[in-house]
Amino acid sequence: MKEIEEIIQELLKFRNERDWEQFHNPKDLALAINVEAGELLELFLWKNYDGVSKEKIKEELADVFAYAFLLAEKYNLNVKDIVLEKIKKNGEKYPVDKSKGNAKKYNEL
Amino acid sequence: MKEIEEIIQELLKFRNERDWEQFHNPKDLALAINVEAGELLELFLWKNYDGVSKEKIKEELADVFAYAFLLAEKYNLNVKDIVLEKIKKNGEKYPVDKSKGNAKKYNEL
Amino acid sequence: MKEIEEIIQELLKFRNERDWEQFHNPKDLALAINVEAGELLELFLWKNYDGVSKEKIKEELADVFAYAFLLAEKYNLNVKDIVLEKIKKNGEKYPVDKSKGNAKKYNEL
Amino acid sequence: MKEIEEIIQELLKFRNERDWEQFHNPKDLALAINVEAGELLELFLWKNYDGVSKEKIKEELADVFAYAFLLAEKYNLNVKDIVLEKIKKNGEKYPVDKSKGNAKKYNEL
Repeated sequence: MKEIEEIIQELLKFRNERDWEQFHNPKDLALAINVEAGELLELFLWKNYDGVSKEKIKEELADVFAYAFLLAEKYNLNVKDIVLEKIKKNGEKYPVDKSKGNAKKYNEL
Repeated sequence: MKEIEEIIQELLKFRNERDWEQFHNPKDLALAINVEAGELLELFLWKNYDGVSKEKIKEELADVFAYAFLLAEKYNLNVKDIVLEKIKKNGEKYPVDKSKGNAKKYNEL
Repeated sequence: MKEIEEIIQELLKFRNERDWEQFHNPKDLALAINVEAGELLELFLWKNYDGVSKEKIKEELADVFAYAFLLAEKYNLNVKDIVLEKIKKNGEKYPVDKSKGNAKKYNEL
Repeated sequence: MKEIEEIIQELLKFRNERDWEQFHNPKDLALAINVEAGELLELFLWKNYDGVSKEKIKEELADVFAYAFLLAEKYNLNVKDIVLEKIKKNGEKYPVDKSKGNAKKYNEL
């Protein structure tokens, strides 16, 4: 079994043991990703990143991943495929010659 | 090479071709995760989830994953390890007998 | 003194007593708004809104307002003016006859 | 009529003309605050705050305020009262002598 599939299976096992599938509709999973992303962001609030504990980042980032994997599973999306597809798409929006070394948004290039 | 490592290598290649490492400090990556999570959330705004296009979810979710993988890489975190570790930790916070079938937060159990 | 100006003065007093102006740059204030918005959102996670405590909403919403007022002050923006101006602008994006009773985004109308 | 009440009346008028009250339940309003906060945050992504257009901040901040006012109205909360109350509460969590000049969270003071 592939790595990501293994992670998802563990997440589903945890969820099902607690009978939580009833709460995990796509809208609330998207909400959960935002809540966890906000907790991750809070670690960097008022400071530069060098003062942030790797231990805490690890935990908050794991939560973001957990709900992102669960949402991917909900829609039967293959994580590797969708990320590689997006990279390809972004390659067209951000051609190397126009975007090299600058962080402008594609509609400002 | 493992699946997640392959994804990360593609993301780094895309980033390096554009000389974007200079922008990708951990704080801005955490910020980017929030921005993308917000775009994902917008798809569900004012509606129930059944009206949301899978195609759009795929794209926004891919963006969340992309920055989450890049932040993991930044801290040299193994995604599978940190998610499984978090599942274990959550298992202690949410014992099956107390949390089965309810969505209460652990501090309200 | 007007109502919003009074609120802002109290926020500045609180900030200055603690010598926190040094942390309150615009980027971190925008970050803080997101962190607090995420905490507000968490109250609604996995549930319908009728199960949410008004007391907690009051507190999290107050935090969102606090940082939003501080960011407005930073840029010397008059809150009433900018909201009324935005309403006017949205009126053009969402004409009554096209948007009445539907929640479509302006670019889908 | 007081300033904030005036703003809220304009927001309700805009909403009611479009028959949008049906979409504006508290959960989706909290969601909207997050979506708009994310758009505000995006303006600061990959850059320091001095490169950000005040014009764009004005618009995104206005959106955050609009939905925050609408959520306050939904719960019949007086914005001035709840912010001043929160300042008082934070004064207890962050006593001047312990928090002056540092940005630590109250549980780390």
